[in-house]
Amino acid sequence: MKKLLAAFVLLPFIGQAQNTDSLSIRRIADEMLTNGKAFENLRHLTKKIGGRLAGSPQMVKAENWGLSTLRQSGADTVYFQECLVPHWVRGGADQATVISVDDRKQRRLLDVLALGNSMGSGKKGVTAEVVAVASFDELEKRKDEVKGKIVFYNYPFNPTYVVPALAYRESGIYRAAGPSRAAKYGAVGVIVRSMSEGTNNHPHTGATRYNDSFPKIPAVAVGLEDADYLWQTCKGGRKVYVSFTTNGHFLPDTTGHNVIAELKGSDGSNDFITVGGHLDSWDVNEGAHDDGAGIVQTIEVLRTLKALGYKPKKTLRFVLFANEENGTRGGLKYAEQAKAKNEHHVLAIESDEGGFTPRGFGFTVGSDTLEKIRPWVKLLVPYGVYEFTAGGGGTDIGPLNKTLNTPLAGLVPDNQRYFDLHHARNDVFEAVNKRELLLGAINMAALIYLVDKYGLSL
Amino acid sequence: MKKLLAAFVLLPFIGQAQNTDSLSIRRIADEMLTNGKAFENLRHLTKKIGGRLAGSPQMVKAENWGLSTLRQSGADTVYFQECLVPHWVRGGADQATVISVDDRKQRRLLDVLALGNSMGSGKKGVTAEVVAVASFDELEKRKDEVKGKIVFYNYPFNPTYVVPALAYRESGIYRAAGPSRAAKYGAVGVIVRSMSEGTNNHPHTGATRYNDSFPKIPAVAVGLEDADYLWQTCKGGRKVYVSFTTNGHFLPDTTGHNVIAELKGSDGSNDFITVGGHLDSWDVNEGAHDDGAGIVQTIEVLRTLKALGYKPKKTLRFVLFANEENGTRGGLKYAEQAKAKNEHHVLAIESDEGGFTPRGFGFTVGSDTLEKIRPWVKLLVPYGVYEFTAGGGGTDIGPLNKTLNTPLAGLVPDNQRYFDLHHARNDVFEAVNKRELLLGAINMAALIYLVDKYGLSL
Repeated sequence: MKKLLAAFVLLPFIGQAQNTDSLSIRRIADEMLTNGKAFENLRHLTKKIGGRLAGSPQMVKAENWGLSTLRQSGADTVYFQECLVPHWVRGGADQATVISVDDRKQRRLLDVLALGNSMGSGKKGVTAEVVAVASFDELEKRKDEVKGKIVFYNYPFNPTYVVPALAYRESGIYRAAGPSRAAKYGAVGVIVRSMSEGTNNHPHTGATRYNDSFPKIPAVAVGLEDADYLWQTCKGGRKVYVSFTTNGHFLPDTTGHNVIAELKGSDGSNDFITVGGHLDSWDVNEGAHDDGAGIVQTIEVLRTLKALGYKPKKTLRFVLFANEENGTRGGLKYAEQAKAKNEHHVLAIESDEGGFTPRGFGFTVGSDTLEKIRPWVKLLVPYGVYEFTAGGGGTDIGPLNKTLNTPLAGLVPDNQRYFDLHHARNDVFEAVNKRELLLGAINMAALIYLVDKYGLSL
Repeated sequence: MKKLLAAFVLLPFIGQAQNTDSLSIRRIADEMLTNGKAFENLRHLTKKIGGRLAGSPQMVKAENWGLSTLRQSGADTVYFQECLVPHWVRGGADQATVISVDDRKQRRLLDVLALGNSMGSGKKGVTAEVVAVASFDELEKRKDEVKGKIVFYNYPFNPTYVVPALAYRESGIYRAAGPSRAAKYGAVGVIVRSMSEGTNNHPHTGATRYNDSFPKIPAVAVGLEDADYLWQTCKGGRKVYVSFTTNGHFLPDTTGHNVIAELKGSDGSNDFITVGGHLDSWDVNEGAHDDGAGIVQTIEVLRTLKALGYKPKKTLRFVLFANEENGTRGGLKYAEQAKAKNEHHVLAIESDEGGFTPRGFGFTVGSDTLEKIRPWVKLLVPYGVYEFTAGGGGTDIGPLNKTLNTPLAGLVPDNQRYFDLHHARNDVFEAVNKRELLLGAINMAALIYLVDKYGLSL
C-alpha cells in the first residue's frame, strides 16, 4: 500500500473516489489543452513524412520518427517489433478517359485512383465498353452482358444513415469484392463509385480483395462527379467506352515494424493496457485523420501521463501499428507475441476513426462489464464523450481479442466529415483541428487512467 | 378533432405517441438528408452575395434572396418587417506596421482589422508607443503610463475551457470595453489580441462599444501570431512604436428588414413558434457559419415541413433577422411588433453558433419545464443531440424573452472549430460540411414538431 501511495504522490488521488477521478481527469485535460504536442507532431508526420504505405520509404521514416518521438515523450522503453508486411506499389500515375462510341474521341478525363492491392492494367491499359450497374443484384441479372467489358459499380453511399460508417460498411463491399465478382463473368476491368458523400470529385482508394479463383483484373475508383457523369451517360442509351491505365503490383513482402513504447507498471503483475493507432496510411494523401490522428493521440497520452508524473499500476503499451490499410500484419504480430509471452491484456484501445471531437467509446466487452463501467461516462461528459456503446475496437487490436479474448475499446469521434476525405487526397493536416484532436487524446488517457485504477472487473 | 386528423393526414401521427414521434422525426431526417437544399442555399448566400453587414448593398441582396427562397420553400406568407439599422462602414483597408524605437524603420507589417463600430484614425493614422498589458488589472496598475500611447490588450483565449464559448465570454470584454477603458487614461489607440485559439494569424473583428464619456479612439484586432510577436517584442524591454490607419465610421441609420415567412397554424389560436438566425454578417468574410448556417437551416426546416405536407397547429414563423452583429435592431423590432399584435409565442429557437454537428439545445425556460421536456432528448439522440441544458437562446430572440417572457431555445453545435473562424476572413462556405449543417436543421425541425404537438406545458 505504501508503494502505491508513493506511486500516486504527484496527483491527489486520495479522498472521495469520484471527486478524485474527476480532478485527475481535469489535470490530464489541462495538461493536454495547455501543453499538448499532438498537433505539432501531426504536422511533422504529415508534412515532413507524408503518405506512408507499408513497405514504402516513407514508412521507414515514420517508424524512426515514431521511435524517437515516443522516447522523447518519456517512455521507459521503446522498441521495434518486426513483422513481415505486404509491399504493394501504385507504380505510377493512374489515368482514365471516357471515349464515346459515336466518335471514339476523348470526351472526358476521369479522375481515378487504382484500388489498393489491385493489379495494373499493363502499359497498354484496358479499353472496353462499360456496363453500369447499381448493385451486385443488377450484376447478376446482367451477367451475360459482362464478358470483355468494364463493370462500373455505382452503388450509392446512403445519405440517410446518420452514422456514415454504416453507409461505408454497406458500400465498401463493392470496392472489396467488386473486381472479382465482375471477373467471374469475364469482365476486363472495374470502376467503383467512391465510398463517400463528399461534395467534390476526389476518388477514394482503399484495399480490394481478389478471389484467387478469377483473373485479377484492374480496378479504379472514381469521384462522385465522375460517377454521376458516367452513370448518366451510360443510362442515356449510348454505348460508353472507357480506357484506363494502372500500374499497381506487389513486390515481395518486406520488413515492417510495430513501434512500441512502455510505461512500466508498478503492481508486479503481467498486466498490460494497450493503446494505439496505425502508422501506415495510403500513398495518395498525408494520412492525417487516417490514422495520423490516432498515432499522435497515442503519443500524447504517453507524454501527458509522464508529464504529470503518473505511475501506472499495469504496464501501459503505446503501439504504432505497422500495417492496417492493406493487411493487418502489425496487429497480428502484436497479438501473436502477446500470446507467446503469456501477457494478460486488461484492455486494448484504438483510435482509428479520425481526429474529430469525441462523442463516445465503443466496447467489445461482456454486457455485464459494459453496464459496470457505464457510470464512468459522467466523468468523461465534460470532455465530449457522452456514451459507451456495445461493439467497437479497431482493426489493429482485433487480433488481440481473437487470440487472447482481450476486451477492446474504440474511440468514437464525430464522423460526419470522415468519409469526405477517407482514403482520398484531401486527408491532409489542414483538415484536422487542434482542439478536436486533443479532446480525443484526453478521453483516451482518462479511460486508461480509470482502467488502470479499477480494472474492468469492478 | 376531425380537423386535426385531417391536418396530419400525410404523416402517420396516429398510434403510440413515442413511436409515432420517432417515425415522424425519422421522416424529417430522411427528407433533409436526401433532398436537403441547405448546402446549396448556403453556397449561394456566401458565394453570390458574400459578407453582408447591416446597411450594406450585399444585405439588400441577401434580403431579396431570403424573401424569394422562403417563398420557393413553400411558405404560406412571406414579408419584410422594416426596422432601422445602424450603418457602420469600414471605409477602406485597415493597415498597420510596427516601427521600432531604435531605427524608426518598419519592422513588421501587422495583419489588422478595425473593430466593428470603431471610429477611424483619420488619414494620417495613429502612431504611438505601445503599452502592452495582459489584462484590465494590469491596465489599472499602469494607468499613468498610458497617456498618448496605444494600449495593446494581450488577454489570452483560455485553452482549458472545453467549451470555447466560455473563453470567448471572458476575453470578449477586451474587444467590447477595451478601447474606452484605455481612452479613459488618455490612450490614442487600441490593439486587441483576437478572441481565438486558431492556429493561423487571421485577425478577428467584432463589435466594440464606446463609452460616450471618453474619446472614441481607433481600435484594431491582430491575429495570434502578430499578437505573440508584439507581446514578446514589448516585453523584451525595447520601446515599440506602432502605426495604424483605419477608416471606420457611421453613416446615418438606414432601413433594414427582418425577412419573415409563415406556415399558418390550424388550431385557430394566436400561438406562434419562431425559428431563426441572423442574415447579416461581418463584411470581411462570407458569414458562412456566422450565421449563414442558421439562415439556411431555418429555411430548410420550412422546406422540409412543407415537403412532408406537415400542417402545424400553431403558426410557425421563420425569421431571418436583420441586424445581430453590430446592434440587435432586428430582434428588438420583432419583439416590439409581437407585443403590439398581442401574439403569444410558445417558443423561439435560434441557430447562431455555427453549422457544426449538433450536440444539444440550451433552454431559457423554467426548471420545471426543462425537466418535463427532457425525455424528448431520447428522440433526438439518433440525430446528434444528447442533452438539454439550462440557459441558451440567441441574441435575436433575446428581446422576445425580455418583452413577452417567451421561452427560448438555442441549438448547441460542436463548437471546437467555431472561434477559429468567428468574425475572421476564413468563415467561408468551404468551412461548412453539408451533413453537419443538415443535422442541425433536423434537430431544429424535430424540436418544432414536438413543441407544436405538445406545447411546453406538458
